[in-house]
Amino acid sequence: MPPLVHPALSLRPILLRSRRNLLPPLLRRSPSSGPPPLLHRWLPRQRRGLSARASAAGGVEEEEEEDAVVGFVTGKLKATELAHAVWRSIVRKGDTVVDATCGNGNDTLAMLKMVAGERVQGCVYGLDIQESAIESTSSFLKTAVNSREMELVKLFPICHSRMEEIVPKNSPTRLVAFNLGYLPGGDKTIITIPTTTELALQAASRIVCSDGLISVLVYIGHPGGRDELSVVESFASSLPVNTWVSSKFEMLNRPIAPVLILLHKK
Amino acid sequence: MPPLVHPALSLRPILLRSRRNLLPPLLRRSPSSGPPPLLHRWLPRQRRGLSARASAAGGVEEEEEEDAVVGFVTGKLKATELAHAVWRSIVRKGDTVVDATCGNGNDTLAMLKMVAGERVQGCVYGLDIQESAIESTSSFLKTAVNSREMELVKLFPICHSRMEEIVPKNSPTRLVAFNLGYLPGGDKTIITIPTTTELALQAASRIVCSDGLISVLVYIGHPGGRDELSVVESFASSLPVNTWVSSKFEMLNRPIAPVLILLHKK
Repeated sequence: MPPLVHPALSLRPILLRSRRNLLPPLLRRSPSSGPPPLLHRWLPRQRRGLSARASAAGGVEEEEEEDAVVGFVTGKLKATELAHAVWRSIVRKGDTVVDATCGNGNDTLAMLKMVAGERVQGCVYGLDIQESAIESTSSFLKTAVNSREMELVKLFPICHSRMEEIVPKNSPTRLVAFNLGYLPGGDKTIITIPTTTELALQAASRIVCSDGLISVLVYIGHPGGRDELSVVESFASSLPVNTWVSSKFEMLNRPIAPVLILLHKK
Repeated sequence: MPPLVHPALSLRPILLRSRRNLLPPLLRRSPSSGPPPLLHRWLPRQRRGLSARASAAGGVEEEEEEDAVVGFVTGKLKATELAHAVWRSIVRKGDTVVDATCGNGNDTLAMLKMVAGERVQGCVYGLDIQESAIESTSSFLKTAVNSREMELVKLFPICHSRMEEIVPKNSPTRLVAFNLGYLPGGDKTIITIPTTTELALQAASRIVCSDGLISVLVYIGHPGGRDELSVVESFASSLPVNTWVSSKFEMLNRPIAPVLILLHKK
């Protein structure tokens, strides 16, 4: 059996494995035992665009950002690329960030390139309830970054609602990113579910620092996708306007296109 | 009684006045005779930001555009400024554009600066059902532009649903912009209404050229605002995905903040 997480990437795998037993029963419901199937996960659909952006550093990234909203409006950029453009403007070298749903690691890699600097080195905490996703992310990163950058990534096979257990309290977090839905090519009965997504959003809102961002890309084309969107919208709408800006970006004539919700902490 | 339209700005005021009698009865319903009050009109709320942007030409405008989506996400830019940033990327010197709801003329001025070039000169058609808005726009423009630019603006006191009567058929239109709601400081029973708004959107979709844009800013804080938003969303959702990109931008934790809907023709 492959390891739950690559040894070089994990800070506390043993502790985390034992903590998995502490998950409340509702998070462990199997698809066959009731309506809401167990947790998790989606892989960004278009790898090419993301990888190209993630591998381009510095000035090139800023040029891409310039046209992000126009690219989205004209259909040239997908919501996930719009999200990355916003991340690049907000995340700084040396920051701590969280990829709450690693999937195949595309977002993790993009975040790593944003926080890893010459003089300051940030940290990327990556979470995914599916061990296969953690393994996939680990393998993908090893092909894309050097060993120095690799040390900045900490991967954990746990539910995103438990992010506070792994991010140190003294590490103000600039970005927490979610891709909500299921893992294409994987078990479609394993999806993120509203209950834990809401807990994860609450946790993210507690750890995100001032001038930080919670980024939520909600895939709505599968059963339960709309319900999850409702939960995210409800959470976003409830945030106090004096400390949060909750914005939403969507395509109206593509009914199953993912919806992007960005929550900026003032 | 003041003239319906400033003589220097109107191409065909007499024709238009006579055509007003051709308006179907439903467009002439008075506020006292039934639920949907007569047409029209809102003034952009923050004049300062718009004017500053409109008066800055060339490179400065491009710099502003660079941060538009991030400005919106962080609450520094309003939806109307996000719209202007997108317009600036799409509209070119020499283009024909339509301000479907002139109001006090801020959008008209912004558009004029986008189409008026050194070598090529575009054209701005401005419409507003309220004569006071046409007069206000005319007065405002005279304080802000030179006589050469002034000649590029044609103002008409008619309903936006009739834009096809004034835009020449051989003038491909790059942008049709709407601000939907009522005129602050004016008669709040006079608002844009779903019936004519839908007709106006249909007209706009017929005259907009390839790589052109319909921009709709919907104010929803007044009675009827949400109904009008539903009509705009329904229209946007119905556009075929192979020829249109319909995107929507909104603030979730500011329930009466205006909603921006951008319809890009491929």
